[in-house]
Amino acid sequence: MAEADRLQKQIEFILEIDKLKEVYRQSFVTGSKKAENDAEHSWHLALMSILLLEYARTEQGEPDLLRVLKMVLVHDLVEIDAGDTYCYDEEAAGDKRLREEKAAERLFNLLPPDQAAEFRSLWDEFEQRRTPEALYAAALDRLQPVLLNYHTQGRSWKMHGITAEQVLERNSLIKEGAPELWAYVREIIRKAVEKGYLSGGRDR
Amino acid sequence: MAEADRLQKQIEFILEIDKLKEVYRQSFVTGSKKAENDAEHSWHLALMSILLLEYARTEQGEPDLLRVLKMVLVHDLVEIDAGDTYCYDEEAAGDKRLREEKAAERLFNLLPPDQAAEFRSLWDEFEQRRTPEALYAAALDRLQPVLLNYHTQGRSWKMHGITAEQVLERNSLIKEGAPELWAYVREIIRKAVEKGYLSGGRDR
Repeated sequence: MAEADRLQKQIEFILEIDKLKEVYRQSFVTGSKKAENDAEHSWHLALMSILLLEYARTEQGEPDLLRVLKMVLVHDLVEIDAGDTYCYDEEAAGDKRLREEKAAERLFNLLPPDQAAEFRSLWDEFEQRRTPEALYAAALDRLQPVLLNYHTQGRSWKMHGITAEQVLERNSLIKEGAPELWAYVREIIRKAVEKGYLSGGRDR
Repeated sequence: MAEADRLQKQIEFILEIDKLKEVYRQSFVTGSKKAENDAEHSWHLALMSILLLEYARTEQGEPDLLRVLKMVLVHDLVEIDAGDTYCYDEEAAGDKRLREEKAAERLFNLLPPDQAAEFRSLWDEFEQRRTPEALYAAALDRLQPVLLNYHTQGRSWKMHGITAEQVLERNSLIKEGAPELWAYVREIIRKAVEKGYLSGGRDR
């Protein structure tokens, strides 16, 4: 590949991913009426990765922060085509994998082959949740919306009638990536029920 | 510091920086009417840092990508208090440093001392533009709004009556961090004048 062509592909990809700034999520920015978008969410996760690294589970090795950062920066790009699938929407979850696979195929292949392969492999690693990096990244990806929800008086939970039981189930994988953060999240969920941000569901 | 207190400080900081999602810039998201905010911009820079690393100037050493990423993720946090200062606004530039210093003092000190020191040092490094990491980060921080401006038909340049000369002057430091990207930007500016996105200014 000629050098100018390589740079052109990279720039086209950089422009294409500008669209992530308009893929809206179900979380709301705290102190705001604004729905969060995927670009903002990914930035927030990246900073959280830096700040909370000491809580990552290390039994299978310490996560490499550079790979964690790359992973969280890249993990939602497929939603440019596939859209954000609300994590409690069981119907949409059905074809989520297929939609996202197609998106990955199109999007990452805008890049020069070596970078397309790297991004695809980062995304696969994130999705498979096996490495210390992926487990830690997944834990933060769960923790972040819980924080936003709790600090917007459960706005999104209430809108969708989510129960404590659903939140506990959805987020229990935080335990795999960052056990101390899971203890923190359980406490948030308890307080959220107490304050009426979240309906109680089954006795825990 | 007790462990629970340490985590509490980290979470408070993570919630505080949510505000960056509402610090608006003068650039517009491409294909949109929306002004870009600092969180989106920082995410975009982080991905650009990964993708364009091969163009970083390496005479004084190769930039360490992990430090570049940390730097671009952190570099605009001070604008939570200090606001975004438009890069062509000479009046606002006057007390920018002072406003940002105060912001850094307040914001970073929400963190536990070790992390406060790390973030402060990343921000200082970025501002001083001496290390290979800071020069590369600064080059991307210039390139990104040029790309958005050009691909929104010069919307923000036109709104503020910016000339090619101003854009060339403002962005010439791209040369220090990434010479090939500077050649690319010069070409964009030439085309922007040709298309009327940017007024021609003095003969170049």
